[in-house]
Amino acid sequence: MLAEIITIGDEILIGQIVDTNSAFISKTLNGIGVKVFQITSIQDEEHHILTALEDAKNRADLVIVTGGLGPTKDDVTKETFCKFLDDKLVKNEKVLQNIKHIFKTYVKRVPLPSNLSQALVPSTATILNNIHGTAPGMWMEKENTVFVSMPGVPYEMKYLLTQEVLPRVVKRYNRPHIYHKTLLTYGKGESEIQEHIKDWEEALPNDIKLAYLPSLGRVRLRLSSTGPNEEQLKKAVGAQMDTLHELLVDIAVGYEDETNIQERISALLQSKSQSLSLAESCTGGAIAQEITAVPGASVYFKGSVVPYETHQKVTVLGIDETIIQKNTVVSAQVAKAMATKCVRLFGSDYALATTGIAGPTKGDATDEVGTVYIAIASPKGVFAEKFSFGNLRERVIKKATNKAFEMLLKEILKN
Amino acid sequence: MLAEIITIGDEILIGQIVDTNSAFISKTLNGIGVKVFQITSIQDEEHHILTALEDAKNRADLVIVTGGLGPTKDDVTKETFCKFLDDKLVKNEKVLQNIKHIFKTYVKRVPLPSNLSQALVPSTATILNNIHGTAPGMWMEKENTVFVSMPGVPYEMKYLLTQEVLPRVVKRYNRPHIYHKTLLTYGKGESEIQEHIKDWEEALPNDIKLAYLPSLGRVRLRLSSTGPNEEQLKKAVGAQMDTLHELLVDIAVGYEDETNIQERISALLQSKSQSLSLAESCTGGAIAQEITAVPGASVYFKGSVVPYETHQKVTVLGIDETIIQKNTVVSAQVAKAMATKCVRLFGSDYALATTGIAGPTKGDATDEVGTVYIAIASPKGVFAEKFSFGNLRERVIKKATNKAFEMLLKEILKN
Repeated sequence: MLAEIITIGDEILIGQIVDTNSAFISKTLNGIGVKVFQITSIQDEEHHILTALEDAKNRADLVIVTGGLGPTKDDVTKETFCKFLDDKLVKNEKVLQNIKHIFKTYVKRVPLPSNLSQALVPSTATILNNIHGTAPGMWMEKENTVFVSMPGVPYEMKYLLTQEVLPRVVKRYNRPHIYHKTLLTYGKGESEIQEHIKDWEEALPNDIKLAYLPSLGRVRLRLSSTGPNEEQLKKAVGAQMDTLHELLVDIAVGYEDETNIQERISALLQSKSQSLSLAESCTGGAIAQEITAVPGASVYFKGSVVPYETHQKVTVLGIDETIIQKNTVVSAQVAKAMATKCVRLFGSDYALATTGIAGPTKGDATDEVGTVYIAIASPKGVFAEKFSFGNLRERVIKKATNKAFEMLLKEILKN
Repeated sequence: MLAEIITIGDEILIGQIVDTNSAFISKTLNGIGVKVFQITSIQDEEHHILTALEDAKNRADLVIVTGGLGPTKDDVTKETFCKFLDDKLVKNEKVLQNIKHIFKTYVKRVPLPSNLSQALVPSTATILNNIHGTAPGMWMEKENTVFVSMPGVPYEMKYLLTQEVLPRVVKRYNRPHIYHKTLLTYGKGESEIQEHIKDWEEALPNDIKLAYLPSLGRVRLRLSSTGPNEEQLKKAVGAQMDTLHELLVDIAVGYEDETNIQERISALLQSKSQSLSLAESCTGGAIAQEITAVPGASVYFKGSVVPYETHQKVTVLGIDETIIQKNTVVSAQVAKAMATKCVRLFGSDYALATTGIAGPTKGDATDEVGTVYIAIASPKGVFAEKFSFGNLRERVIKKATNKAFEMLLKEILKN
């Protein structure tokens, strides 16, 4: 079966916000064997919505629509659905009670008429109860295609999709299984990898698809297959993946379906009852932010310092000022001293340290923009590596963050 | 004139990556008066690409296509453009030289045949030179619609769009002006705001459009207008915005077109030669990461500590252990002590501190998940506020980060 996603809202089309909802919806639907054929972002405008609904109806069995359900008058989605379905808006008592409950419990004021108007829904819609907000989810149908309308607020949408929409989709449709397995590799480009695995790739059966997904220092290799029997799919894709892993054993770090690299580090450190701290200069908190975004980080993550000013590396971390004077602040010696002091300051088993020039200007450094030293202190000692990550600030920070996780994982696996 | 964006790649449709390119392209085109009518994400598959190109041709003057230009065999965009344009691939000498140059200078190995095949382009395409990568940009035409094909790698796409595509668009098309002005507000919901400004909104002229953009504790109010005369647009929108700002003076913090809140804080601190440091517990580096993502942060940002483990608040920040014992670690007293110690540790004028329970579990705390204290130490003293940000980890961190910036801006403006 095929699904499509339609996001409604001028804010996406003028580039004011990035559409993160569609990725979440696609991934979730994929997980239960529903293939997303197309994602379309359209204007908050009746004619455009009607056209998009009609086009999607002709291609898909299920159309997920987000956005345009606010209490304010720039939102026209519900009225447009009535036109599309030849239906009319009626007040829904259950939705009204939910709105009143949310205002009483969380908003702590009396709802305005515009808030209460969110209880108006197309008469044929099945209501999906939104415990996180006042706009209800709606499940509607036209000529055997199901249309689901949800608010665009990400956590409301996520709740409705996983708790209300998914069980209904599972019940209604026979779905094939879709199975993806993704190998994470570090350190080689996609063309080099392709050259290395070309004989294997040529011989890949037609029903297994290979995709190369390059991004800043990583290439992910994804194998995908679709079919009625989940066990067979897993076996067929798994066997090919084993061969691929063997071919790329020097640069492979793990499978992404099972875990990403932070989660793998987290699991390893927890299983060994070891801990981590960070001293981030040029990455400015980006590594800590990725680590603490994952629940349970507090089990192994002791904490971090961002000694952004050169001087703070001495006063906060306590490294010897002469090391900076002799080697400059962006140097292997300073990176190593930061990591060593970080282990002592936080009492952790491992410490990661970064010092470099993210750009666009050089600051206190003499090296080129993009130069980054990453050091790791472990129970076995301390070492640093030098990198050149180019001259785009965002890319330097991201590449340094990725590289730091890669080095740390390799080091933990060694010990 | 109308533009459309087509992104090619299964990785978007299976939710493996978030499409950030489209937001950048939309915003950039909008800035030169080009309206983006629709964004469509499609499969890396010939028939789907052909259909999407044909549909877009019938609606738009300019179609920007990203993705599907890698050296590996899962990318079919160029071959499909040849079919669409009734053209054939020919080797382009300039592109070939660029590929060889990039391999010699950056990759530091001999290009493989698959790398050199990236020099094959449709014979009628105008080449847009990609200094950051081996896949060229291409400018093609069919029945008076221009098609631009670019690689999906974000920094390559950004370079090509701004340096190569934009000047050609400006030269070729007469464009109206599109003018947006966005007011940032904090602390009231969209329906409350609407109720408060309804008389003004009713009287808004038809050619000025108002949009409400709510997100975790903020509502942005955007006024938009399109027309031939830029000065008239700015004047008309500006006059309405002045009235709106006056109506919402208690909750308005600034205009987003001019600056976002971090940039405003940055500009204010720099103009006063004042500095900032952070002690982030529950936000885990998220505030530092947002601050250091902006070039020039080193001028006013001294550094930060993430004392993630309770114990580190004592050993690293140096707060009195009895304060924690008496009040628990998630308390106004601890937040204030963190901010005060942070000012001393980093020698900064301001410090922001966060302590709370991001969830899903409570850790060392007795309070409910979602409870966050944010403290600010300033030259005038220290204070803390308590918040309840719900029980979704990602949302708690994001809301606390937004709120911290809001409190800091207000405090700086007072001093």
